[in-house]
Amino acid sequence: MTTVAAYAAPAAKAPLERTTIERRAVGEFDVLIDIEFAGICHSDIHQAREGWGEAIFPMVPGHEIAGVVSEVGPGVTKFKVGDRVGVGCLVDSCRECANCKAGLEQHCTAGAVGTYNAVGKDGEPTYGGYSQKVVVDENFTVRIPDGLSLDVAAPLLCAGITTYSPLKHWGAGPGKKVAVIGLGGLGHMGVKIAHALGAEVTVLSQSLRKKDDGLKLGADHYYATSDPKTFEDLAGSFDLILSTVSAPLDFGAYLSLLKTGGALVNVGAPEEPIGLNLFSLIGGNKTLAGSMIGGIAETQEMLDFCAEHSLGAEIELIRADQINEAYERVLASDVRYRFVIDTATI
Amino acid sequence: MTTVAAYAAPAAKAPLERTTIERRAVGEFDVLIDIEFAGICHSDIHQAREGWGEAIFPMVPGHEIAGVVSEVGPGVTKFKVGDRVGVGCLVDSCRECANCKAGLEQHCTAGAVGTYNAVGKDGEPTYGGYSQKVVVDENFTVRIPDGLSLDVAAPLLCAGITTYSPLKHWGAGPGKKVAVIGLGGLGHMGVKIAHALGAEVTVLSQSLRKKDDGLKLGADHYYATSDPKTFEDLAGSFDLILSTVSAPLDFGAYLSLLKTGGALVNVGAPEEPIGLNLFSLIGGNKTLAGSMIGGIAETQEMLDFCAEHSLGAEIELIRADQINEAYERVLASDVRYRFVIDTATI
Repeated sequence: MTTVAAYAAPAAKAPLERTTIERRAVGEFDVLIDIEFAGICHSDIHQAREGWGEAIFPMVPGHEIAGVVSEVGPGVTKFKVGDRVGVGCLVDSCRECANCKAGLEQHCTAGAVGTYNAVGKDGEPTYGGYSQKVVVDENFTVRIPDGLSLDVAAPLLCAGITTYSPLKHWGAGPGKKVAVIGLGGLGHMGVKIAHALGAEVTVLSQSLRKKDDGLKLGADHYYATSDPKTFEDLAGSFDLILSTVSAPLDFGAYLSLLKTGGALVNVGAPEEPIGLNLFSLIGGNKTLAGSMIGGIAETQEMLDFCAEHSLGAEIELIRADQINEAYERVLASDVRYRFVIDTATI
Repeated sequence: MTTVAAYAAPAAKAPLERTTIERRAVGEFDVLIDIEFAGICHSDIHQAREGWGEAIFPMVPGHEIAGVVSEVGPGVTKFKVGDRVGVGCLVDSCRECANCKAGLEQHCTAGAVGTYNAVGKDGEPTYGGYSQKVVVDENFTVRIPDGLSLDVAAPLLCAGITTYSPLKHWGAGPGKKVAVIGLGGLGHMGVKIAHALGAEVTVLSQSLRKKDDGLKLGADHYYATSDPKTFEDLAGSFDLILSTVSAPLDFGAYLSLLKTGGALVNVGAPEEPIGLNLFSLIGGNKTLAGSMIGGIAETQEMLDFCAEHSLGAEIELIRADQINEAYERVLASDVRYRFVIDTATI
């Protein structure tokens, strides 16, 4: 066991504060990671405030972790001391079910173990990346290629894979027109990745406030969804629409923007049910789909792709004592485009 | 122009009665078809009773047409007198848009011309298959292979292609578990085709009333959806679910029956919007899709497939003077599984 400094929410809705936690001893297949950076994902806030139901406290959030290996267990073969590595939303799964075997560990039928706010196979709560060190099984650790700085790589572990996986699965690439709804933490990576995949990219944002940013990030077009003319002008335009927002959209209107056979894939979603007329799917052989992060091998593939195309997140680096303020700014959509904690300041 | 006998609804909700209609002269690329059989599709009733909005009267329904070519225009190259042919839901389209060029004439962006209750390019209303003859462009006429009797082939022109197209598109085949919701006109063809494609087929029906039929048609399993235990037993079971019903289903419950990455495809749909929690899609990378009939080339492919596998519809052959009674029986779900009109009785 190792005692390490961390930032934790002591109870639901309480501000995060500095504390210490115990990390398990490095097991046979474990790596000890000296965390350098941890991204702040909107879901950290949902969970720290019990917006998604009962949670485990104290909670050390953080599933966008980048750091350097400082110790390896005797059975470890994939990593050595000094390797630059990342950890995303999962730290374990059953490894035996059809989904695990298919590289879809996030959908492990026995339940994947979350990086925080979960209970590991040892019965102990898991603690996330807002801390100085973490011990993770090598099979749930990925390599951060040399071409990526650790600070801008950290958000890729959630925001990157969450957008990369559906963009790949649904065929974003040359000759395809892809729209991204929302230009936040997820959306800005969606734009970068879709552009790097070779697609023609359109941002659909509430306003034109971030238009200059969007175009710089790789978008070819930028439209305000508050303008009804957008829906006239773009009717039947897209092969794929990626929705990264949790606002309750008018899905019929967005589906009308798809070409025949097109797909609207949600990685964000409102908590309440949406109303949907199925004829908006039938009328054009259309698809409404969902996607949740990605598996471990695909996360590595995403990191390699991002390194090859020099795609890091756009970040605002903060000190640990700014976390609570950063949460408020995330809730106010006042971040371009991801807060990343310099964990040396914890 | 040729005067031919037909059965028509003179006005919305009025009973159908015998009448005569004019068919256009056989044009350069037209075939004149002596209709032998016409299937009764549920959508005939919707349209004859203006359930789908304002319609054109008098209306001669029928888009499941099987017959024999009795005359061809001078430019016709695909058919000759004596050929056994079929006509489905479309008799024309723009032939120039991306969808038409992709063989998706049913999604013609200029609007495909329906076989009835539509206006042709000549400005005249189209009349469907409840008649003795029809003139159709050869490009919207398909060949009925010798292996299929015309009576059991007629329903394939709508019920066959409507189920074949999504089953093919979404990968029904060996090693795949496919469920079909509803065992009516569409559903019974869905079961036959999915079975012939090599999938393991489960029928999800309200009750076990038609279980023996379902198993004879090719289903491997049959469950009653009125039994809550069905949803426990089958959780996470299917690669693909094809919904052929228009009842407002609990889509969250049906989506829970899909494996990770599975798809629920609707060819039937309630007229009212459904409520859908998007987390039921995100949680397992799942898909909710729609599909509308199929294009002309795919309709021919479907007929060839059905002939190869000896798949005709299960029909109850009726006289023309039984059409109104048959409509009531369709509405009461009292048909196993498709009424087909012997047009010699018109």
